[in-house]
Amino acid sequence: MNRIITISREFGSGGRELGRRLAEALGIEYYDREILAELSKRTPYTERYLQEVEGHLTHALYPITIGKTFLRTEDYSLKQAQAVFGEQYRLLRELAEKSDCVIVGRCAEYVLHDYNPFRIFVYADMESKIRRCRERGADQLNLTDKEIKDNIRRVDKNRSKYYAYHAVQTWGDRANYDLCINTTKINIKEFAPILAQIFNG
Amino acid sequence: MNRIITISREFGSGGRELGRRLAEALGIEYYDREILAELSKRTPYTERYLQEVEGHLTHALYPITIGKTFLRTEDYSLKQAQAVFGEQYRLLRELAEKSDCVIVGRCAEYVLHDYNPFRIFVYADMESKIRRCRERGADQLNLTDKEIKDNIRRVDKNRSKYYAYHAVQTWGDRANYDLCINTTKINIKEFAPILAQIFNG
Repeated sequence: MNRIITISREFGSGGRELGRRLAEALGIEYYDREILAELSKRTPYTERYLQEVEGHLTHALYPITIGKTFLRTEDYSLKQAQAVFGEQYRLLRELAEKSDCVIVGRCAEYVLHDYNPFRIFVYADMESKIRRCRERGADQLNLTDKEIKDNIRRVDKNRSKYYAYHAVQTWGDRANYDLCINTTKINIKEFAPILAQIFNG
Repeated sequence: MNRIITISREFGSGGRELGRRLAEALGIEYYDREILAELSKRTPYTERYLQEVEGHLTHALYPITIGKTFLRTEDYSLKQAQAVFGEQYRLLRELAEKSDCVIVGRCAEYVLHDYNPFRIFVYADMESKIRRCRERGADQLNLTDKEIKDNIRRVDKNRSKYYAYHAVQTWGDRANYDLCINTTKINIKEFAPILAQIFNG
């Protein structure tokens, strides 16, 4: 069976960087945005739209009952989200069958549970996440710390709901992971190749 | 400033083994039972009694008001626990001043906060913890799985209350740690020397 490493992460914690560096150190495939690109080929939706599906699903799960027309839209939205998740489910299992890999996000640790993945959760202090967001370009958008913080919270809330809905377990609950890494004090660039060694045993 | 590594752990998760092996790999001091031995010299209490103080404190914090005499006992018990904690506080800081070290338990990550310790939390699935307890001798006591499980829960509940009382934060909350390690699938013997490398940077 292929070695699968999954990474869930708080927004701004550097989970993607850790995943990429880990895959590099191990010389194995890395899947993140690539999943959206492939999903876009297999469905009628753009990558951008697929990225927003998590948020859409969240709304669909908590409909405000203000009228029949609105409810119909919500219902459609939910079915759409479920269909996309189904396609993504098949895709993730295809990737896991193909070769060793690191997969970021997409409830992969849950979808690939029977592949016995090594499940990593990456998180950090808020201050550190705000700094990382600034480094990634939030500065160019002239966002205040408060705006970045609100955005981090919004994205993570959606991830948490998306996870609760599809994976029927708690996002970020340590029991669902093999390693939870706080990147506040850890240098990801130095840490990734060291961590990679535990997979070469 | 000395390099301090603290380890909090669920009962039966192998946190002590990880701490010991980490200290060995780094060639630094390891403190666990040694703390109780030293505390016993500095207080009127035996090591065994000191080990039970966490449980005593728990009772003291949640007194059942069945009479004045009983309440007086509880009050005394609480003061005693606080005095022991104070002595332990001083001892931990002395150890941190002395040299690089690994310290297991005793709210060390909280007490030594200003030493910027690397804070590890070790945990595992219940099945794995029961197996570890059996290997450590629970078998010889003819305990059933249910009895071992109840014991694990009781010890961890006391640790959690002890921590909440003295450290005023949540035991096991990932935000309070730099690394949370689930030992269910991880081989501690192989993992410890690899992990040690992150401290040699």
